[in-house]
Amino acid sequence: MTFFIKDIVYELGEIKLSTDSLISQLEISDLKKVELKERVGTDFIYESGPQTDFFSLSTKCVLSLLRKNSISEDGLGIIFVTQSNSQIIPAEGQRVKHACGLPESVFVLDLNIGCSGFVYALFVATSILKTSHLKNIIIVAGDTYRKFIDPEDRSTSLLFSDAVSGTLVNSEGSTEILEIDFGGNGANYNDISLLKNFDHSKNVKFKMDGAKVFSFTNSVIPSSIDRTLLRSSKKVSDISLFFFHQASGIVLQTLKSKLNLTDRQVPETLTELGNTGSASIPITLSKCLSDDSVKIGDHLLLSGFGIGLSYGTMILKW
Amino acid sequence: MTFFIKDIVYELGEIKLSTDSLISQLEISDLKKVELKERVGTDFIYESGPQTDFFSLSTKCVLSLLRKNSISEDGLGIIFVTQSNSQIIPAEGQRVKHACGLPESVFVLDLNIGCSGFVYALFVATSILKTSHLKNIIIVAGDTYRKFIDPEDRSTSLLFSDAVSGTLVNSEGSTEILEIDFGGNGANYNDISLLKNFDHSKNVKFKMDGAKVFSFTNSVIPSSIDRTLLRSSKKVSDISLFFFHQASGIVLQTLKSKLNLTDRQVPETLTELGNTGSASIPITLSKCLSDDSVKIGDHLLLSGFGIGLSYGTMILKW
Repeated sequence: MTFFIKDIVYELGEIKLSTDSLISQLEISDLKKVELKERVGTDFIYESGPQTDFFSLSTKCVLSLLRKNSISEDGLGIIFVTQSNSQIIPAEGQRVKHACGLPESVFVLDLNIGCSGFVYALFVATSILKTSHLKNIIIVAGDTYRKFIDPEDRSTSLLFSDAVSGTLVNSEGSTEILEIDFGGNGANYNDISLLKNFDHSKNVKFKMDGAKVFSFTNSVIPSSIDRTLLRSSKKVSDISLFFFHQASGIVLQTLKSKLNLTDRQVPETLTELGNTGSASIPITLSKCLSDDSVKIGDHLLLSGFGIGLSYGTMILKW
Repeated sequence: MTFFIKDIVYELGEIKLSTDSLISQLEISDLKKVELKERVGTDFIYESGPQTDFFSLSTKCVLSLLRKNSISEDGLGIIFVTQSNSQIIPAEGQRVKHACGLPESVFVLDLNIGCSGFVYALFVATSILKTSHLKNIIIVAGDTYRKFIDPEDRSTSLLFSDAVSGTLVNSEGSTEILEIDFGGNGANYNDISLLKNFDHSKNVKFKMDGAKVFSFTNSVIPSSIDRTLLRSSKKVSDISLFFFHQASGIVLQTLKSKLNLTDRQVPETLTELGNTGSASIPITLSKCLSDDSVKIGDHLLLSGFGIGLSYGTMILKW
């Protein structure tokens, strides 16, 4: 099953916030401020204004890919990965497709997944490209979690950026999925949650139990990576680059230390852009594609994890 | 791409309501009552009680399939199709998997689609079965729309039943997808809607513009069926059975009349069970599998349509 990731674009919320400035306002000791900064690992976070939402950011991403690439509307599909739909019903996909001026016949699929979602979507997209008439699939992955985040809640407000990515996957190419490992633990489904009957005035907000999610990440993700390497008969040293979900400074640091990885092996966009949710892996990959640090034949490992709690790990041969 | 639909189960809301009795209470003329009854086409509808929801119904479906069939947990996946998750975040999949006692490694995918969803899920499931290590995929499709329906709103309250189906799809078999046709029109995304910030006390409810949805169904679905037949070089007379989404009496009547189909060619469960949303196609298929009206080699047409507005049409060779 080979394919080609032809292009990646992304859009951020338009309000740029400095985490240093936010942390400096907190009434905690200087030592705690330094610790907090290291734990979150972000210099800047991006927030969408009142007129910006998943719909507008994803419309921009799709239009940008259509403008930059010659994509036939025949055989085009779009897979949306988000939990930031404007309404409970319907999901956003058909609406975005229409706003982009695309015909009714473009295939649309809406996935309800968080930070692990890009890996799931890439697996589904490549399966569909292999077995159907579709020739191009755009994966639109992202969220505007800040709309539901309590600014006072340090476990989320210093981390998450509103961001949406668009990844153009073409059925012709030499990139190959060598191995996958998907899983999740629904016992802890409430560790990252947003209740349904939220009401801004009632202060029902996006909640994350940082310690529990860190413990999940810390134990489950290295195991998933080990399994994926073992099944593909690869060693850590065979992998050129590890594209982890850009969860937080402490999570990236722990994964690097558990797997004995250098900074060079783990590209990151967390510092500059924050935790961009399901957009974080494609955004980080796009950075490495831009600066030519991914070469044909390279082995790349992608690992997304979070809400669900769920994870998806994949080894690609580029 | 061949596969085998090995088993289908379903669960209904536990409260059985008679549409005759509901219609008799309306303050409209007797003639209007007869017309209304014909338009909805349902004798009974099923409503879930306060303790029943998508989570509980889908857990029952998965457990029932696991009990009735010998399914290895290795190579098992579950695709969920619903818009009745308990929370905005997370989707229900990982939680249901855990409640069924299944291991972390079972693949879970959550799709955010309505009445067209089963056809989308079957397309995705068979693509994944073909291209990965997965051997069995359970498609859990259904909704509990009645929880958000205004009992006074005749366009929805006399139609929808709370129902969830479980369909076991195995990678070994002789069933084949001959042709597919997916599409949708996001311009009309609000014709069936449930806003996000609903609050039971505020009476923000599930809304359907019956006339507009009927007009969509009336024009778009016969065209989709014609295209699918044409592309597979089949005629209407080559299809043994047409499994339409059980939308309403008037919709089924119109499709039959536009395509010149007899009652025999269009199995229905609408009269007995109501509009069971994304569960309606698998439930109707299960009825025909139980009474042996589907034979090996038969050509079946599946067509789901609704929320989005979206549709999916598929011709199977059984």
